[in-house]
Amino acid sequence: MNLQERLAAGDVRALARLLTYAENDYPEAEEVIKNLYGRTGRAYVIGITGPPGAGKSTLTDKLAKALRARDNTVGIIAVDPTSPFTGGAILGDRIRMQELFTDPGVFIRSMGTRGHLGGLSKATQAAVRLMDIFGKDYIFIETVGVGQSEVDIVKTADSVVMVMVPGLGDDIQAIKAGIMEIGDIFAINKADLDGADRTKIEIEMMLDLNENKAWRPPVCKVVAVENSGMDILLGHIQEHRTFLSESGELVKRRARNIRNELMDLVRDRVMEFITRETGKKLTVDDLVQRIVAKDMDIYSAAQYIMEAINK
Amino acid sequence: MNLQERLAAGDVRALARLLTYAENDYPEAEEVIKNLYGRTGRAYVIGITGPPGAGKSTLTDKLAKALRARDNTVGIIAVDPTSPFTGGAILGDRIRMQELFTDPGVFIRSMGTRGHLGGLSKATQAAVRLMDIFGKDYIFIETVGVGQSEVDIVKTADSVVMVMVPGLGDDIQAIKAGIMEIGDIFAINKADLDGADRTKIEIEMMLDLNENKAWRPPVCKVVAVENSGMDILLGHIQEHRTFLSESGELVKRRARNIRNELMDLVRDRVMEFITRETGKKLTVDDLVQRIVAKDMDIYSAAQYIMEAINK
Repeated sequence: MNLQERLAAGDVRALARLLTYAENDYPEAEEVIKNLYGRTGRAYVIGITGPPGAGKSTLTDKLAKALRARDNTVGIIAVDPTSPFTGGAILGDRIRMQELFTDPGVFIRSMGTRGHLGGLSKATQAAVRLMDIFGKDYIFIETVGVGQSEVDIVKTADSVVMVMVPGLGDDIQAIKAGIMEIGDIFAINKADLDGADRTKIEIEMMLDLNENKAWRPPVCKVVAVENSGMDILLGHIQEHRTFLSESGELVKRRARNIRNELMDLVRDRVMEFITRETGKKLTVDDLVQRIVAKDMDIYSAAQYIMEAINK
Repeated sequence: MNLQERLAAGDVRALARLLTYAENDYPEAEEVIKNLYGRTGRAYVIGITGPPGAGKSTLTDKLAKALRARDNTVGIIAVDPTSPFTGGAILGDRIRMQELFTDPGVFIRSMGTRGHLGGLSKATQAAVRLMDIFGKDYIFIETVGVGQSEVDIVKTADSVVMVMVPGLGDDIQAIKAGIMEIGDIFAINKADLDGADRTKIEIEMMLDLNENKAWRPPVCKVVAVENSGMDILLGHIQEHRTFLSESGELVKRRARNIRNELMDLVRDRVMEFITRETGKKLTVDDLVQRIVAKDMDIYSAAQYIMEAINK
């Protein structure tokens, strides 16, 4: 059997191999996804984000266990833009692996940057599709922090859980600016610490400012290390899923994400094309140098590139 | 005389007209810049940014006055992504105009969003070039806040002044994440308020963490409304300009900005082209619908668009 057939047959090693291909942007991964595209879209994708130290990994693991207890299969993609390749996240994975390793129903994979622009986002989308084709019921996209690239990636999930911790104070202010709004469900982790209630009130107040939304994000307190509150959190995720389905928002949301992804793919291909084709005559660097030297204006340079694309 | 000749001859009304064209993305503005491109790059561009309420407008006005006292001509572009058109900023402009109106050596212009993606950035760059061609010695790009689009725009300046105020506390935390690093010079405005020294120490400490930089941003205390500290701030800007010139960084920085702008221009044109050309057969929306319905995979859709571009 080839890789594609093995993936379709549920071979874990084929999945692992194809995820590596996706991370390296090898054409084989794309080819398999193309051929098996009809099998995508079945998995429910949950984004887990929040500031560093909020306990996102532990919370993801416990949610995975709760889903396993309900006979669902789970894939976890840990996105770490700070690590070139997956090096930085490997140790963390090993520790997590020990706990979940014995369960073949859970597959964990880290995704690091490969240095190429937008590469991490593309690789993560490919990884979600591969796990989806493989047959995972739930796929988690978990981020290391709340940087822009991480937020952009986690936004592609069906439901986004924003993980907070008590006493963030300043950090809530930091997160407020544009990041809070991507949370569909708020989980205050480590809720046994002082200040959990205050944090909850602050978040509720912030959410109340946004009145004109059809979905008002619920806020719940959990203690992931003690496996406490996981059923309630999972219940909120299920409510959100039901809301999305019944309101027609799920289709809209996925269409919006596909549109963005399609535009990113086209942009990347155009940029590759420019680098390759204009390279034969004037490279982009040549053009920049000419503009700096005033031998050419920027609009004419853009036109030059457009003509190179159209040959 | 046509608009281009009038601009070259220093006609203020021609400048005003062309800035409106630039804001509306009319081809006339681009045509004039293309024809007079050799006259660009002479002006020194200063970005003024910082959180709302830091007193950026007042500080910009006082810097403009200080430069006028040294016989330099000044252009000010107030960037406000929150205002569709320039509506939102007009009142503020009027108040500012009263003070500087009588001085023909200062030209103030607001730039609002026109709703089209990247439009504000493109319009601001065109405005800088038009003022540059007109003959302004210094051009300020002043932002309303520190949103991502504003930061992207202000980054295109030669020197960026980050305006802070005492007692920001939480906001410094918020600004720290990725925004602090764009400041070449830090000005603590309203330094007569309590906590100015503490704010200065906090900023200095933050800057000291970044050891491996050839330029260590200076931090100064000013009180813009009292016109206090403007000479020192202007001195720091001048030092930074000298540093950029002597280290060769100015050419590198401008080349980097031109490269980014060129790529943005090409991306926008490709997107326009896609919308226009694929519209004859399958629109982008058609493609998205097909992908959602699984009638087509996303990579084949990207390929379809690439082929439409290449005809």
